[in-house]
Amino acid sequence: MSVLIKGATILTQNDARQQVHGDLYIEDHRIVQISKKPLSVEADFKIHGTKHLVLPGFINTHTHLPMTLLRGYGDDMLLQDWLTKRIWPVEAQLTKKRIQSGAQLGLLEMIASGTTAYLDMYFFEDAIARITEKAGVRAFLGFGLLDFDTPEFPAAELFPQCEGFVKHWKDHDLVTPVVAPHSTYSCSPETLQRALEIATKYSIPLHTHCAETRDEVYDTQKKYGMRPVEHLKHTGLLRQGMILAHCGWITKSEIAEMKAAGVAVSHCPVSNMKIATGGFAPVPELLAAGVPVGLGTDGAASNNTLDMMETMKFTALMHKNHRWDPTILPAQTVLDLATRGGAACLGAQQTLGSLQEGKTADLIMVDLHTPHLTPLHDACSHLVYAARGTDVSTTIVHGKPLMVEKKFLTLDPEKIMEQAQKDAQELTS
Amino acid sequence: MSVLIKGATILTQNDARQQVHGDLYIEDHRIVQISKKPLSVEADFKIHGTKHLVLPGFINTHTHLPMTLLRGYGDDMLLQDWLTKRIWPVEAQLTKKRIQSGAQLGLLEMIASGTTAYLDMYFFEDAIARITEKAGVRAFLGFGLLDFDTPEFPAAELFPQCEGFVKHWKDHDLVTPVVAPHSTYSCSPETLQRALEIATKYSIPLHTHCAETRDEVYDTQKKYGMRPVEHLKHTGLLRQGMILAHCGWITKSEIAEMKAAGVAVSHCPVSNMKIATGGFAPVPELLAAGVPVGLGTDGAASNNTLDMMETMKFTALMHKNHRWDPTILPAQTVLDLATRGGAACLGAQQTLGSLQEGKTADLIMVDLHTPHLTPLHDACSHLVYAARGTDVSTTIVHGKPLMVEKKFLTLDPEKIMEQAQKDAQELTS
Repeated sequence: MSVLIKGATILTQNDARQQVHGDLYIEDHRIVQISKKPLSVEADFKIHGTKHLVLPGFINTHTHLPMTLLRGYGDDMLLQDWLTKRIWPVEAQLTKKRIQSGAQLGLLEMIASGTTAYLDMYFFEDAIARITEKAGVRAFLGFGLLDFDTPEFPAAELFPQCEGFVKHWKDHDLVTPVVAPHSTYSCSPETLQRALEIATKYSIPLHTHCAETRDEVYDTQKKYGMRPVEHLKHTGLLRQGMILAHCGWITKSEIAEMKAAGVAVSHCPVSNMKIATGGFAPVPELLAAGVPVGLGTDGAASNNTLDMMETMKFTALMHKNHRWDPTILPAQTVLDLATRGGAACLGAQQTLGSLQEGKTADLIMVDLHTPHLTPLHDACSHLVYAARGTDVSTTIVHGKPLMVEKKFLTLDPEKIMEQAQKDAQELTS
Repeated sequence: MSVLIKGATILTQNDARQQVHGDLYIEDHRIVQISKKPLSVEADFKIHGTKHLVLPGFINTHTHLPMTLLRGYGDDMLLQDWLTKRIWPVEAQLTKKRIQSGAQLGLLEMIASGTTAYLDMYFFEDAIARITEKAGVRAFLGFGLLDFDTPEFPAAELFPQCEGFVKHWKDHDLVTPVVAPHSTYSCSPETLQRALEIATKYSIPLHTHCAETRDEVYDTQKKYGMRPVEHLKHTGLLRQGMILAHCGWITKSEIAEMKAAGVAVSHCPVSNMKIATGGFAPVPELLAAGVPVGLGTDGAASNNTLDMMETMKFTALMHKNHRWDPTILPAQTVLDLATRGGAACLGAQQTLGSLQEGKTADLIMVDLHTPHLTPLHDACSHLVYAARGTDVSTTIVHGKPLMVEKKFLTLDPEKIMEQAQKDAQELTS
């Protein structure tokens, strides 16, 4: 398949953050040419880029995709109430069919708002993988592990099932399997180590929640005599390929440990602010230390969207406000987190996160021709401070257009929204 | 003119926060009927409400409308640098034509995102009033007063010009004149008192910036031996009809003074976080004390949008995060601030802020049939946590449709955007 985008403003997000006004040509799954001069090749899709930005697709480094079904079901509650009264009772009723329904809805929202790759952590990940493959989105799918039964498998079957999932999806174009022990408080050291064994055996990433709340830090300290990061180091999981979600309650010396170990961090500002855990990743310090940082929406149940544009604005403003310093995390840095940073988190910086000839064609187009993006002084500022997910007009993953000029090409939005509404009502009634 | 909305979910925002599934009929500028049973009257506009919410239009209680031209021109800067290097040099070049251009762009964005009334503070307010009247939006227009020349008038002409403006617009259907001394640091006690005289003589509101930054508090204390609120009290301006923008650095005893005096507060979370003054209105304490609170976007130069949906989400999350308490400012309270609260700030609670038979028909429709608003568990949650300005499909002010199903009826978006881009480039080149 080939795609030609004509006459757009291309934010390459390459090392020089070069902007090119011109054409971009895609063949198969790669970017073949970025040119200031008009290209006159034939292409299966020819897309007009006037008054549009072209940029790398957003990489959402932490979500629980099927929880999209629970968007708006339980807000403004204390974390423990929310989990015990809303989330867990519903999760106990999850079925493969409902997981597929929620995942499809999430994929639809991500395609619509310009996310081309996501890192998930949940259950029924094989079902999520199949739906994702059909939708054409790139996914890093974390097979959720606990000490006890999951909604999908009894505890005794978890590890063989996890290994089977990893083996099946290991060399897929779009899906990368990930081993995802839930956290240090829901996984024993033995569970963590068995997770590590699978990740090591197949050379795939690890993903876990880390230091999201103060309670978690205190509990881990009480149980193991160590804070979460140290405990992860002790159990061997603090290593290259590990992506830690949240890191809201970490210290400067832990940042040094994280850098030395080569782990990455997914920063989830909207979820942290909404659940009001009081903590959020110290992004300026992490970046200064050279730790890869990406942005995550977390699940729609605690956000309540999967909109990476919104997450960018919250990222910039949360840290400025917290430091009383408007110069902290300028727009370009935040756009980097949502694109290059996400790619670096996932160890995919060679192929994803910027637009360069030879790199994989995961990219989006943003329509600037709208009142709230007028006038145009600075494209990067608009993306972080003024745009919203719905300004994305075109989404291309692995060289394949998934949405062109707002029209979905791989998913049926009407059918998915209808089914999601039905399943959500059943789940919560 | 008459409008009939059929089969919608109507969030009345009345005292009982009643939701009605049914029809709403408007004649001239009033809501005539809200009915669970289908109405079969004839109407000039008949709008289908399936999968739509109907709610009171948003009331933006603090902005500087023409600064929409400076959206994205100067981000991530220290306040003083931003003012001296970006904003003031441009403001020195303002002309009536450019003001009109920026105001039109702002009106277009507000209509598109569901704001039906706004409180402005700027210069050239007569020009803004004329453009606003043409656009059909409701406006409370604050004639900006300083000790020195404004971009429009020499200092000596300011007060007669202000009084002329007030007299001209006093009994207009859509435009209410407001006297707006800029702040305690840019206005002497004499300027404040002369402003007060005009407001008192014509029984119109007053609007000023108050305690936005710590520097302002320290400077006022140093100069007058009083903090800003006390200084306003001393000069007589702390009185019914005064709307104070920001109030980021106020004390509990000042809140008691404010309540006793009958002043209202405009909370501007996005601008406060972006400029990173460290302070923002203590909304829970203000509400507990019974002070009317509305939400404001502030100017697009420091936001960078006029999107009240976004401001609602920032309001809820900022305070939850700040207090480590997710139960603070629940969705319904925040929706109240953006509608009923704004009306109370402006002394217009008898006519605006809720949908009731006999009240003024300032209302909007929100399209729920989109991935990021699916499924629907709770309409109020969606408005605050998941919707964005672009989900507004229809905007009606004073009974007159300004946008129906995304089509603008009073403004020409293409012409306005083209002109704004041109003027913005001229201003900043």
